[in-house]
Amino acid sequence: MAEPHSDESAGLCPRFHRAVELIGRRWTGAIIRVLIPGPKRFNELLAAIPGISDRLLTERLRELETVEIIRRDVLPESPVRVQYELTCRGHELREPLDALGRWAERWIGEALP
Amino acid sequence: MAEPHSDESAGLCPRFHRAVELIGRRWTGAIIRVLIPGPKRFNELLAAIPGISDRLLTERLRELETVEIIRRDVLPESPVRVQYELTCRGHELREPLDALGRWAERWIGEALP
Repeated sequence: MAEPHSDESAGLCPRFHRAVELIGRRWTGAIIRVLIPGPKRFNELLAAIPGISDRLLTERLRELETVEIIRRDVLPESPVRVQYELTCRGHELREPLDALGRWAERWIGEALP
Repeated sequence: MAEPHSDESAGLCPRFHRAVELIGRRWTGAIIRVLIPGPKRFNELLAAIPGISDRLLTERLRELETVEIIRRDVLPESPVRVQYELTCRGHELREPLDALGRWAERWIGEALP
């Protein structure tokens, strides 16, 4: 009996709302998925996501760093090496993103505008 | 051995990309979640999603109708009754949205900007 009501509340939950908008920002989902196998340098990310610009990748990485979904590591090598990796919070996005990927595989085709 | 590569491809998949951007549009996730328990009329949706305007709800409903995530039903009553409901494609978004809701519950707090 309580089921429909709890679904309705879930629709309104500000945390859910925030998460959807965070993940839905252009390129954010792609950046997170590309980082799942392991840390990457800026140029590796740029190469792995065709179509993204330097400027936009920089912007998205900063946003994701601010919300602690990714971490920027500066490795003390010579020359200094900078890489980006997912935090725990970031890694746990794998499940929702995979579920969305399965949905997209099934339902998004060429017919969809 | 093929795992990292297949993850990278998943990051780039245009269908996945399209799905993330579709779901991430402001209010779209909330509208879908509010429709999960069953069909609703325009004013019921408006009441269930505090903060959304008439204009934006109309716009989002049209977008979701275009991509066949919701269906607009005109019931032959007097006066005519219009309601919105999820299609199959829409109902199957429940899993990814629930997974994202669990992530948000766990990781998004007041500390997150």
